[in-house]
Amino acid sequence: PDGDAMAGAADRNGQLTKPPGALGRLEDLAQWYAGWRGNPRPSIDAPQVIVFAGNHGVAARGVSAFPPEVTVQMVANFEQGGAAINQLARTFGARMDVVPLDLDTPTADFTEGPAMTEAGVVAALRAGWDAVAEEADVLVVGEMGIGNTTSAAAIATRLFGGDAGDWTGRGTGVEGDALALKTQVVADGLAAHGSATDGLDILMRMGGRELAGMAGAIARARSLCIPVVMDGFICTAAAACLEKTQEGALDHVVAGHQSAEAAHGHMLEALGKEPLLSLGLRLGEGTGAALAIGVLKGAIACHSGMATFAEAGVADG
Amino acid sequence: PDGDAMAGAADRNGQLTKPPGALGRLEDLAQWYAGWRGNPRPSIDAPQVIVFAGNHGVAARGVSAFPPEVTVQMVANFEQGGAAINQLARTFGARMDVVPLDLDTPTADFTEGPAMTEAGVVAALRAGWDAVAEEADVLVVGEMGIGNTTSAAAIATRLFGGDAGDWTGRGTGVEGDALALKTQVVADGLAAHGSATDGLDILMRMGGRELAGMAGAIARARSLCIPVVMDGFICTAAAACLEKTQEGALDHVVAGHQSAEAAHGHMLEALGKEPLLSLGLRLGEGTGAALAIGVLKGAIACHSGMATFAEAGVADG
Repeated sequence: PDGDAMAGAADRNGQLTKPPGALGRLEDLAQWYAGWRGNPRPSIDAPQVIVFAGNHGVAARGVSAFPPEVTVQMVANFEQGGAAINQLARTFGARMDVVPLDLDTPTADFTEGPAMTEAGVVAALRAGWDAVAEEADVLVVGEMGIGNTTSAAAIATRLFGGDAGDWTGRGTGVEGDALALKTQVVADGLAAHGSATDGLDILMRMGGRELAGMAGAIARARSLCIPVVMDGFICTAAAACLEKTQEGALDHVVAGHQSAEAAHGHMLEALGKEPLLSLGLRLGEGTGAALAIGVLKGAIACHSGMATFAEAGVADG
Repeated sequence: PDGDAMAGAADRNGQLTKPPGALGRLEDLAQWYAGWRGNPRPSIDAPQVIVFAGNHGVAARGVSAFPPEVTVQMVANFEQGGAAINQLARTFGARMDVVPLDLDTPTADFTEGPAMTEAGVVAALRAGWDAVAEEADVLVVGEMGIGNTTSAAAIATRLFGGDAGDWTGRGTGVEGDALALKTQVVADGLAAHGSATDGLDILMRMGGRELAGMAGAIARARSLCIPVVMDGFICTAAAACLEKTQEGALDHVVAGHQSAEAAHGHMLEALGKEPLLSLGLRLGEGTGAALAIGVLKGAIACHSGMATFAEAGVADG
């Protein structure tokens, strides 16, 4: 981030017609955003939402409440504008891109070997990198992929420690025996990749193409100084692979929301990210993050649009 | 609310292309909104923000970090578009009206007698009633009035019990001795009006014109079936006077946010209202509620805009 822009934004913030600190987190958000944009009085004009989709070999083990063909059906729904994320992108003035990643060929079942080859994960990271619009000024990355909370739970367990049961949750709605099975699948995956410790290696072994796509896009956004609003459990697991490879890799990322998937809150705590929203969403697609674009827009509108005490002729206490 | 519209909305919600409940509170919000609007598939096209301003005799006792002339100065700032609420109203597509209420004549110091006469509180309630646009489809009411957290703390103590110290907080930034003084002023006010138990009587005795304006507007919104997004500590105190006069009077009201003013959370709990946002705001003006318009818009956009499983050809699990 640009220290001068942040300092300029902090100076401006102190002059705006409100008691000091009265806009709470909106003030911190605006200064953080100003720093990354290199502009003490920035605006948000071009948010971008990218939804990555991938299929998972592990889905064949019955870890989801939905059949794997739903991934490709939902991609069609995204392309026709019928999904939740389409409505939220439109509501907050974001362009939306959909990036299906080789849906006809699921990744390998990660309980039996690496989900992706090195070339495969690099191609997916690259697809994410290439999907970011250079002119975007906020980025949301979301995902669709039947089976991908299983993948994310395995990644989280390996990155943050504990047992499979600590990080495995309901996903789209598995309970009881199905949840026990899912937890066992995560444990089997961990056992099959005992040696992995590097974030990107873990992503390759237990992730999926849509997780790698999100990671690649988040990295690209940093190179373009585009702040990112992070979505829920799966998005955060993908992002965490970057952080565990390079500390500070998520400094340009704010947590858009806390998912109802129980372990998401623990992951956010471990990453030191306080969510902007906590409304019980557990849909993925980037929906929680897209909703938080509204909060970020509000923060920037106040910061850059308000009058100063001097401009407004208001006594400053 | 319209039971048929709510049932129709619930039926629609169950068919949308997402796992059941995956949009969390957005789903509840959409169905609640549909019920009040009498439309199972509603839209939000005309939000209105009304900012009421009033002056308080009790301000002369030094309860605020800002001098009383700031009320009229901030009204000019609202009218010129320079305040935080102006930026948020614009961001979320709301029209904004400013209603200054007899600013040259502060209410009486409520530690010495009733803040308003019966005619005075009725006039302010009426001003609020008249300020609501019949065509509005969401209403936010906000306030400006140096000294009004003192008034709100006195109202909250009388309505919800406990001592002045339980409900008196920093407001725009009083601390230490100034906070002790403010708490004493609240206690003095309570002592001066020991007999009041009815919500509207308490509003007259310890409230202010802008609080009465908000209460009148909230009541009018109900008569017009316009859902209301409630703001912070002062707005909630005003709204609570309605609820304590007629139970259920706030069924058309959702809590937009939880303020950093410590007692606001307790007031929301007592009213059974769970806030949509909790971002540390403590500015008033309707800012927290205006920010929450974005959440409500997102909820309605998803509910009314998403494809059903049948429309999209997606397997429903």
